[in-house]
Amino acid sequence: MTSLDAIAGTAERGTLYGIGVGPGDVRYLTLRAAGLVRSVDVVAFFAKRGRLGNARRIVAPLMDAARQELRLEYPVTDEIPADHPDYQNQIAAFYAEASSSLSALLEDGRSVGLLAEGDPFFYGSFMHMWRRLAEVFPVEVVPGVTGMSGCWTRANLPITWGNDTLSVLPGTLAEGQLVDRLRNTDAAVIMKLGRNLAKVRRAVEAAGLLSRAVYVERGTMPGERILPLAECGEPAGAYFAMVLVAGQGRQL
Amino acid sequence: MTSLDAIAGTAERGTLYGIGVGPGDVRYLTLRAAGLVRSVDVVAFFAKRGRLGNARRIVAPLMDAARQELRLEYPVTDEIPADHPDYQNQIAAFYAEASSSLSALLEDGRSVGLLAEGDPFFYGSFMHMWRRLAEVFPVEVVPGVTGMSGCWTRANLPITWGNDTLSVLPGTLAEGQLVDRLRNTDAAVIMKLGRNLAKVRRAVEAAGLLSRAVYVERGTMPGERILPLAECGEPAGAYFAMVLVAGQGRQL
Repeated sequence: MTSLDAIAGTAERGTLYGIGVGPGDVRYLTLRAAGLVRSVDVVAFFAKRGRLGNARRIVAPLMDAARQELRLEYPVTDEIPADHPDYQNQIAAFYAEASSSLSALLEDGRSVGLLAEGDPFFYGSFMHMWRRLAEVFPVEVVPGVTGMSGCWTRANLPITWGNDTLSVLPGTLAEGQLVDRLRNTDAAVIMKLGRNLAKVRRAVEAAGLLSRAVYVERGTMPGERILPLAECGEPAGAYFAMVLVAGQGRQL
Repeated sequence: MTSLDAIAGTAERGTLYGIGVGPGDVRYLTLRAAGLVRSVDVVAFFAKRGRLGNARRIVAPLMDAARQELRLEYPVTDEIPADHPDYQNQIAAFYAEASSSLSALLEDGRSVGLLAEGDPFFYGSFMHMWRRLAEVFPVEVVPGVTGMSGCWTRANLPITWGNDTLSVLPGTLAEGQLVDRLRNTDAAVIMKLGRNLAKVRRAVEAAGLLSRAVYVERGTMPGERILPLAECGEPAGAYFAMVLVAGQGRQL
């Protein structure tokens, strides 16, 4: 016999929006992203401890004081290496807890916009929430301008021409692997520089690409820095930093 | 002696805007792109003969009848293979002529927004204008959501996790090269399918990735189609089509 609960039903569940907020400049949010930031019941975002949160900072001009916010604060950032089991356990527990917080709001019928730097499906923390919640709640993902697009735009560097191939590589790869991958591509974007910057620079040089490589830090954001990798003396890259090597394909 | 021309000066030159219009849905234009489409003196766009032009179609809801438009029509499209000298000569002549048309407007002090599908610096025709005009006129490039972001979003396919590498490959590569590149990456986007679809499918299968590969046609646009590559029987891919293979990196 059908239960009364099933017959009576409950309020409609809220929708989870994965909102790509682009590379950093608020003008590079999409119309859809901006419309959602201004209309969802709750704006949720990830942030490092003690920081405002970069995604939240990006949308600041679109927020008003009345808007409910949900800050999801990482328990660890750079204190433990990302490949250490302690890091992975803590982050996994944090993601489980964060998805519970989002679930509670969605169950309650509230619409929640989870901000994602760049594009939500391109190395986004949002993906870890999506994989837990997308089968349970209605979800809409709003693609965004990637951080790398923002960086190559600001560096005045058309990245791929004609039939160029592009490789997006994390700086965490072993030096030899980096060299191999760089030798087998026309254009490259190297992300996750952090402590890997010196190694990345050696790999770029070994692949014969140093003269073409550009270092971009905080592209489209306050504090933006753009310089030839060859002139970048720092041993470590900033969090929002990448190395770009443009392709040289057919230029008609 | 300084000429009177130099002393009298001329009206300020117009600015050339390279406007990324995103993957196809007008809601995925950025705020900056939409603001420019509605305010530049002239909206310019490339189009194939006999077609409205995809970039122009995307921004249609933002245009009004009074806006001046400049249609730049390709003399050839698929009639001649892109690597044939006749194709390259005709396209080079066309680009030279198109940049003259843009120059004339800019010299006249008009602001011109040249639409670019996706992101202007990622395989964009805009780049061929940029390289001719950027040293002569003020230029602002507005990054856009790439076609591939639109496609992986619509396919519900987070493309890169953790430390995944991503390779963007043109379907024009030789079959053996495609297999090699696919074996040496975690995630892949294969573009420019056209007549290469059957070859691309064989390469994806040889690299052991057929079960993970998704074919997306006209992502975010009317007529969108998304299906497993294994079930895609066509010998040729549509113009706005790509094959996606998502990475399987760390999922915490």
